[in-house]
Amino acid sequence: MEVVREGDGVLIYIDEKRKFVVKVQRGKILGTDKGYILHDQLIGQPYGSFIKTSRGYTALLLKPLRQDYVTSIRRVTQIIYPKDAALMIYLSGINPGSRVGEAGVGSGALTVAIASIIGDNGILYGFDVSKKALECARENLEKAGLLHRVILKEQDVRMDLNVEPLDSFFLDIPDPWNALVNVSKVLKPSSTILIYTPTINQVERTVIALQNTGLFRDVRVYELLLREYQVEPGAVRPLTRMIGHTGYIIFARRISQVSTLNVQDNSVK
Amino acid sequence: MEVVREGDGVLIYIDEKRKFVVKVQRGKILGTDKGYILHDQLIGQPYGSFIKTSRGYTALLLKPLRQDYVTSIRRVTQIIYPKDAALMIYLSGINPGSRVGEAGVGSGALTVAIASIIGDNGILYGFDVSKKALECARENLEKAGLLHRVILKEQDVRMDLNVEPLDSFFLDIPDPWNALVNVSKVLKPSSTILIYTPTINQVERTVIALQNTGLFRDVRVYELLLREYQVEPGAVRPLTRMIGHTGYIIFARRISQVSTLNVQDNSVK
Amino acid sequence: MEVVREGDGVLIYIDEKRKFVVKVQRGKILGTDKGYILHDQLIGQPYGSFIKTSRGYTALLLKPLRQDYVTSIRRVTQIIYPKDAALMIYLSGINPGSRVGEAGVGSGALTVAIASIIGDNGILYGFDVSKKALECARENLEKAGLLHRVILKEQDVRMDLNVEPLDSFFLDIPDPWNALVNVSKVLKPSSTILIYTPTINQVERTVIALQNTGLFRDVRVYELLLREYQVEPGAVRPLTRMIGHTGYIIFARRISQVSTLNVQDNSVK
Amino acid sequence: MEVVREGDGVLIYIDEKRKFVVKVQRGKILGTDKGYILHDQLIGQPYGSFIKTSRGYTALLLKPLRQDYVTSIRRVTQIIYPKDAALMIYLSGINPGSRVGEAGVGSGALTVAIASIIGDNGILYGFDVSKKALECARENLEKAGLLHRVILKEQDVRMDLNVEPLDSFFLDIPDPWNALVNVSKVLKPSSTILIYTPTINQVERTVIALQNTGLFRDVRVYELLLREYQVEPGAVRPLTRMIGHTGYIIFARRISQVSTLNVQDNSVK
Repeated sequence: MEVVREGDGVLIYIDEKRKFVVKVQRGKILGTDKGYILHDQLIGQPYGSFIKTSRGYTALLLKPLRQDYVTSIRRVTQIIYPKDAALMIYLSGINPGSRVGEAGVGSGALTVAIASIIGDNGILYGFDVSKKALECARENLEKAGLLHRVILKEQDVRMDLNVEPLDSFFLDIPDPWNALVNVSKVLKPSSTILIYTPTINQVERTVIALQNTGLFRDVRVYELLLREYQVEPGAVRPLTRMIGHTGYIIFARRISQVSTLNVQDNSVK
Repeated sequence: MEVVREGDGVLIYIDEKRKFVVKVQRGKILGTDKGYILHDQLIGQPYGSFIKTSRGYTALLLKPLRQDYVTSIRRVTQIIYPKDAALMIYLSGINPGSRVGEAGVGSGALTVAIASIIGDNGILYGFDVSKKALECARENLEKAGLLHRVILKEQDVRMDLNVEPLDSFFLDIPDPWNALVNVSKVLKPSSTILIYTPTINQVERTVIALQNTGLFRDVRVYELLLREYQVEPGAVRPLTRMIGHTGYIIFARRISQVSTLNVQDNSVK
Repeated sequence: MEVVREGDGVLIYIDEKRKFVVKVQRGKILGTDKGYILHDQLIGQPYGSFIKTSRGYTALLLKPLRQDYVTSIRRVTQIIYPKDAALMIYLSGINPGSRVGEAGVGSGALTVAIASIIGDNGILYGFDVSKKALECARENLEKAGLLHRVILKEQDVRMDLNVEPLDSFFLDIPDPWNALVNVSKVLKPSSTILIYTPTINQVERTVIALQNTGLFRDVRVYELLLREYQVEPGAVRPLTRMIGHTGYIIFARRISQVSTLNVQDNSVK
Repeated sequence: MEVVREGDGVLIYIDEKRKFVVKVQRGKILGTDKGYILHDQLIGQPYGSFIKTSRGYTALLLKPLRQDYVTSIRRVTQIIYPKDAALMIYLSGINPGSRVGEAGVGSGALTVAIASIIGDNGILYGFDVSKKALECARENLEKAGLLHRVILKEQDVRMDLNVEPLDSFFLDIPDPWNALVNVSKVLKPSSTILIYTPTINQVERTVIALQNTGLFRDVRVYELLLREYQVEPGAVRPLTRMIGHTGYIIFARRISQVSTLNVQDNSVK
């Protein structure tokens, strides 16, 4: 049975609204409105077991998952929702060992999720123009124990990127259309690009720009709606409130530069 | 520049309705209603390049992604849609090196997706009661080059499973409530279970059964709606037809057996 | 040009969150956090024109629509959302002159909407078991100038209803399955029943009960999701938050009692 | 008990895919792939009763509802779906006696629905530039017994309309932005306009044009998704396939021309 050790990342789950991801350090205290918990209490406890707060509330000790790091992340920007990160990563085709690019990294939520998938043999280049964002992302990656897989660069991806060819690129910047040519230069033939954008106007400009480069095919635009259900015996129903919109996901595949001329693409028509 | 070699899996993309995943073998022919392609033509071509069919249609040569294997899979059962597989894998927390269970494997679509994520250091136990399903899954895993990561077992998961503790279990059987106790025995404390089920009645029974075991917490029920958009300059709109329902996704986390008594769980209320 | 007169119902629209329906009476004052408005100011103003509050904010004078009465209604119960009321009324087939039943009336929101459609030659019987609800509904109908079309009855619709045959019945009670036989007795052959219910378990019980009576056909179950969009030039997107669930709408048609035996109905299978 | 008489419109319901609205005429025959039905058989039958086709299939005799006329309508154009017609009519505020405009009428589906609501004291002006559409609409209105409430005009609404002030206008043309000024001239202050349009680009142009006229306020943009459920005892779920997109609904209210200057509207921001 695996137990909590000093230095571990731990998820302390009191209830739906009180989930805390902490790095266990002797002498430290987690304070909550349901009472405090001494980190010393946690050490040696089995994962999946319950402890009590100082006020007698029950808390569950869990290993943090990808999404626990993501939702507990310190934020300097809007983050990509798990439903969207999940589909983008799935469609990207990235796997253990993949070489990936991301811009802008923002608070590093998607960065954490990508880094968890590529394993220790993969590499992720994370670009952002904001020093503050990069610092926040670095801190969040460190907490998740994934920083060694990521190279953070303070750079505008509308300028030349200086990296070896990549298997996939994730683009979440306000004007993706301006970055496509540069990004395409570091994408292997047959690789994927995933673009995330909140307005339908950005979708339109980006899709047209993708097609105009002549370097991408199989362009698709998706939107996900997530409903959560409430289950009481004899009373099952969706939750009354939901997130009505996050962003649109654009997918495309990089082709080789050799034979792009005069070939029609009708994939999104 | 990477080129196609004999033995490679290749995606031949003619148009949205004509996507073929083939294993390249000298002397073989791919026949389509847009003309045939000799496998010998493919060898030595760079990925991302275009070739012509015998009738002069253009086809794009791509490396198959996870979802290309999944959608081109030979089927003996209904398969899980990419949108659902993506969220289930994301929420499961599986990563390179994870030890995972799945039942029933059916045609192996989700099996391929899970196996692609866990890497060569991970292991996936795939259970099914149908010999025909297992054969189909084996064939599809082989085609995707992932069979070495998977141990397929002809077994009913409502009976004792004989595997070492797992990090996550994916359950897609008609009566998941009958398998929970058995599955819980092979799940590590703090691990995840992901259940997929098409009717709301199955959701209700499963959630109640999860709660009654006293072995799971943080139970959640999700449903995803995927919209695809059509982008023509000046005329952006969602597609007229969409898949209105696939299935519900139930998530829960296994707790340690030590301290489950008298602890309320309100996570789905 | 039509102007506001004493006794008129008027909608005073300051902004999206400050919409007030008032009955104009000399000497009265409408107080708001953006300043007050004297009713005397309103009299003689053309509809569609602007006035100023005491603090200088601009307010628009409009004739209240059905939905303005509904959303400004005094509430003692949860009310039916416009999207649902709209579809229920549409599917009911009610028109000027229709004879309609409704139970329970609750705060009278749907009652106002139905009464506005049936005209002065129609009649609506509104049933509720709560005196408080009936008083609230009466007040809201009066404010909307529609009380003369409605007969409010303090009665449980699971008991015998004593009204002449109706063209349609709207049922919004916790256990509609217990009222179906009674309601069917006051429905003309070929008439419609519209049932509104928040959980999927109530849907299931109600549909099975409808089929078991042998008195209804063409049973259908609907759910509506409403997205609202934000339009700024160059930045169109759905609103971030939305109502994820209100209730399910069940539709069925009353058949004549003569020939119901041994006839299969597969309408919702 | 009401019975079918010669000249009645009748809905003959065999199953979900075989619903026929016919005008009963002695000597006529309704032919279907489940056998024929003589109109003479229908006369004298009570509404809500069952008859047999020549091949022994059971058919239900019903009074056609608004939506039965709409879905059985002869079409020369794409028609507005009931879910959308329902919300547009609801939001329009039209009632018995209302004076309404519509352009273009197309096949007359929305025309039938509006005409059924306004009663014999209301009037609907239906505009279209296509003679063929107007003929189709006339035929459909006649079949529904509603033609006497509608004045059909072969006219482009981007040209001057010559009608007395209206309570509401329904606009379903490809370029609604070009018609707004003309339509505004025949709208009473405080009246409503409802615009239906399939692409998000048309939404953007229309909303901006509405705001630029300075003649409309309370502009809103809606989209409805309709899910239909399948109910078998113990197996409730949404239908697998659904309509993913029909069109967007834009709502606005006409203000008086007097005081529009320098007044900000933030309703859709």
